[in-house]
Amino acid sequence: MYVRSENNKKVIVTEGLSRKLLSYGGAMMSVLLEFQDGVGMPVHSHPHEQNTYIISGVFSLTLNGKVYEIKAGDSFYVEPNIVHGLKCIKSGQVIDTFTPQREDLL
Amino acid sequence: MYVRSENNKKVIVTEGLSRKLLSYGGAMMSVLLEFQDGVGMPVHSHPHEQNTYIISGVFSLTLNGKVYEIKAGDSFYVEPNIVHGLKCIKSGQVIDTFTPQREDLL
Repeated sequence: MYVRSENNKKVIVTEGLSRKLLSYGGAMMSVLLEFQDGVGMPVHSHPHEQNTYIISGVFSLTLNGKVYEIKAGDSFYVEPNIVHGLKCIKSGQVIDTFTPQREDLL
Repeated sequence: MYVRSENNKKVIVTEGLSRKLLSYGGAMMSVLLEFQDGVGMPVHSHPHEQNTYIISGVFSLTLNGKVYEIKAGDSFYVEPNIVHGLKCIKSGQVIDTFTPQREDLL
């Protein structure tokens, strides 16, 4: 499955935070998130495993009760049902990849 | 699991192609690949599912016998054991995420 960038519909999650569904199939799905300064994805959890890569920007990551300042080039893995959240310090893009698929995002 | 960019060791795969292991855990692993113009990852296959995002650059993707020109922002999904390869047309970075982990890349 191949997804052209132009065909990805941008969904506004909240003011200053948008989401684009990327390629998915089988047990995998990727999503591109774009954050403006100061905007956050509040702490939450889900049964899916998640691997995230910071393409650009600076963020405050809350992961399993700890807080880290992370930036472009950094990455993190989230086990199932572990509480995590991101707060944007400097605007940027993030890729989340999930297994299995997040059917709630389709 | 949180991986700082500085701690990622760059591995030279071949001249003009390097790889950095990103975060991994459970059934997931991500890898950052950096291609110079003209360099390719020859067609190959593996039993792992793969989701790929093009961060920058332009590539020729061979996927299941078809060829596509892909660029920054595009993404693709590779089913298990499906033949795929990338040839770099304009230098750039790509993220591959696998399930399960590619233990051969550890």
